[in-house]
Amino acid sequence: MARNTTVKADQNAPAITQQLAEFVAGHPSKGWSDAVDREAHRTFANWVGCAIGPAQHETMHAALAAISELSPAPQATLLGRSEKVDIASAALLNGISSHTFDFDDTHLKTIIHPAGPVASAVLALGEHLGSSGRDMMDALVIGIEVSCRVGNAIYPDHYDRGWHITGSTGMLGSAAACSRLLKLDAARTQMALGIAASQPIGLREQFGTMTKPFHPGGAARAGLMSALMARHGYTSSRRALEAPRGLLQVFSDKTDWSEITEGLGETWEIALNTYKPFACGIVIHPSIDGCVQLRNEHQLKADDIRNVSIRVHSLVLELTGKKTPADGLQSKFSVYHSCAVGLIFGRAGEHEYTDDVVNRADVLALRGKVEATVDDSIDEASSDVTIETNDGRTLHVFVEHAIGSVERPMSDEQLKAKFIDQGEPIIGRDKAEQAWSAAMRFAESANAGELLAAAAAS
Amino acid sequence: MARNTTVKADQNAPAITQQLAEFVAGHPSKGWSDAVDREAHRTFANWVGCAIGPAQHETMHAALAAISELSPAPQATLLGRSEKVDIASAALLNGISSHTFDFDDTHLKTIIHPAGPVASAVLALGEHLGSSGRDMMDALVIGIEVSCRVGNAIYPDHYDRGWHITGSTGMLGSAAACSRLLKLDAARTQMALGIAASQPIGLREQFGTMTKPFHPGGAARAGLMSALMARHGYTSSRRALEAPRGLLQVFSDKTDWSEITEGLGETWEIALNTYKPFACGIVIHPSIDGCVQLRNEHQLKADDIRNVSIRVHSLVLELTGKKTPADGLQSKFSVYHSCAVGLIFGRAGEHEYTDDVVNRADVLALRGKVEATVDDSIDEASSDVTIETNDGRTLHVFVEHAIGSVERPMSDEQLKAKFIDQGEPIIGRDKAEQAWSAAMRFAESANAGELLAAAAAS
Repeated sequence: MARNTTVKADQNAPAITQQLAEFVAGHPSKGWSDAVDREAHRTFANWVGCAIGPAQHETMHAALAAISELSPAPQATLLGRSEKVDIASAALLNGISSHTFDFDDTHLKTIIHPAGPVASAVLALGEHLGSSGRDMMDALVIGIEVSCRVGNAIYPDHYDRGWHITGSTGMLGSAAACSRLLKLDAARTQMALGIAASQPIGLREQFGTMTKPFHPGGAARAGLMSALMARHGYTSSRRALEAPRGLLQVFSDKTDWSEITEGLGETWEIALNTYKPFACGIVIHPSIDGCVQLRNEHQLKADDIRNVSIRVHSLVLELTGKKTPADGLQSKFSVYHSCAVGLIFGRAGEHEYTDDVVNRADVLALRGKVEATVDDSIDEASSDVTIETNDGRTLHVFVEHAIGSVERPMSDEQLKAKFIDQGEPIIGRDKAEQAWSAAMRFAESANAGELLAAAAAS
Repeated sequence: MARNTTVKADQNAPAITQQLAEFVAGHPSKGWSDAVDREAHRTFANWVGCAIGPAQHETMHAALAAISELSPAPQATLLGRSEKVDIASAALLNGISSHTFDFDDTHLKTIIHPAGPVASAVLALGEHLGSSGRDMMDALVIGIEVSCRVGNAIYPDHYDRGWHITGSTGMLGSAAACSRLLKLDAARTQMALGIAASQPIGLREQFGTMTKPFHPGGAARAGLMSALMARHGYTSSRRALEAPRGLLQVFSDKTDWSEITEGLGETWEIALNTYKPFACGIVIHPSIDGCVQLRNEHQLKADDIRNVSIRVHSLVLELTGKKTPADGLQSKFSVYHSCAVGLIFGRAGEHEYTDDVVNRADVLALRGKVEATVDDSIDEASSDVTIETNDGRTLHVFVEHAIGSVERPMSDEQLKAKFIDQGEPIIGRDKAEQAWSAAMRFAESANAGELLAAAAAS
């Protein structure tokens, strides 16, 4: 019957749930610098583009077909599609879409993809409420602050034991953001965080399946519903995050509370956000970057190239050493294919990882000329690239930090190019341009209307 | 950037996810004994009554108000209410309701409340599909088998670390049951279990708040949606449960695979299900049982009683030693109040734990005459009850196993009385009688119509 058990636990954790709730409910609108607000807009715009790109992917078809069995009310827009669904399902589906190409943003300290769970919920709820762009941007910044700070407190133990941290902290970010958007007071926000705390979503075991992008979508949905329930008086533990049997102690051995409390409201995790320029695993990025740099600087064509030689950390080949990928999905784990498309196309977006491109004759030919050598004196974030040309030149570049890293952020122009690249096939070039502009000045918008008119499919 | 981590893990787990999926998809209809099927009907009927009872509780008002913000399609019935909502929300809300009074069934080996997550999903989906009663009962038995076997594999470590095991295994039972009801093949069922594996719900920290009953409801919803997604081709890891980073190894240090594989399809966990006769913590039950036995045997009235003395294990007073409870909720943690109402009313249902009853003069007077003594030689499942009467008699009973235990199961008549007791205030006595009858012969029903006509409020 009943059992006595002793669990090692920190009985004296600070009132994390309450402190976060007070921050969420009480922090002033745009209570941060212009630079932080600019990064928030880049985060948001990058997320919109990443959600539009896979809008017609089989993952989305399957998810939407399931949701359609509920006959959802047409409350909120699906990015890159023409259907509308209820707000909870829109949060789910836009969240799934935005992570389907694995091309979204990364908070490198925790490997959290922060926008998916938060922006998906904010946009769906904000559209329905008629919220201002400013209110939605405030909710985005604050929600991401919550999930990334929780991530900082528990990373790496939590991640190492197998949780997909994007989803397993994301429901807290979403609950925080939606509580803010609903203008809940601190007490109800605390309840919303508590309800969300019972719903962590995501296992790393799912990587390579459609359930990986489900994680940010499911987290977005769970957080949004938690906020709605709290709005109507639903209750939860006031110490749901920090109690000995609260979420953080239950699912992580590391719980560094100071990562949550110190500088809360003063420093901003969204300022550390990064964006992928290439649609593949991040360890390949420096090699692609080097190839693209040499191509552009020397106006190289595939026919000019005799040999490509890269020296990289052993981890790069462990993770992405697939010499002869058979299809698009496999090619994302091939540094050889990635260098070839970087040299031929000057880019490595989603299009360069399709089955068609993988089997093009020129790609196959150049891929065969790429050699990789392990050199563990080179950091895994770097790559040493040497190209020999048929006319006898030896071209070389050492990439210490790839484009897209914190040290070498993508420019707005590069982010826009990535956005258009994803948007054009789905909504056409003109609407993609409009959607980009609307997203990048979203805080000035009266509501989500202008963005969504451009970002939905006709 | 990337990190090398070593996680202690069992690399050689059997193919649990696949084996469960093949069982779910392939086991014959009513492929178990009449006795098991009878217990399944008792489980189902008890669950229906427990879901009707709290239908107008504030917990349900708050949850339904949140769901109503989604303008749900009227697809499925809410037990004890007149509204209809979409099938996923019906699974959620009936699941919440059925655990709100903490009066539902218990699989004592794991402290799982098995019906909530499974029956809530089965009834909502089965109503919508027009499934036969037999198909729904098959889904119930099979779904409960999956969640309880997973529970057996990870209990007690998983529970000890703070998970509310009802919700954190329940989504697997719900996914299994809904896959069965949707007649998914084994491959798609395996995907459904995998999608559900990313969504464990529930922390023990939430006990005493509305989020506790959210757990079975959320699990019901998550499993149902996982099955719908799998039906439409959504994918997940084929080893989502057993892989080194699969659910069971991620959230429990104990993973006894044989608890899942041995005798699968031959022995039935639902046969071990138990039902609470009293609406309070289970350690109080033997004391109430003793009081009710002496009351009935000797036709005692409150005025006859000079003194009530119980000897119990120390755990009973640790958990339920509240001498002067101030309200209904507190009174559930008072063995003193519980003995008093058992003696006055001959029962201790939800009605005996209301604020009104707690403060009745006769209850207060008798409560003051109850004395409890710790005796750790007495098992926590037992109680030694002695009553002295004003006319000088000394009455005594030792209750080894309380009514409602595996050893002394409630009779059908007792279960019916509990059902009517919960149903009458909500749907009236006639409909409660009809609902009971329909639930107890549910497998003979062409569909859920007869039950739901009786069990919904007009």
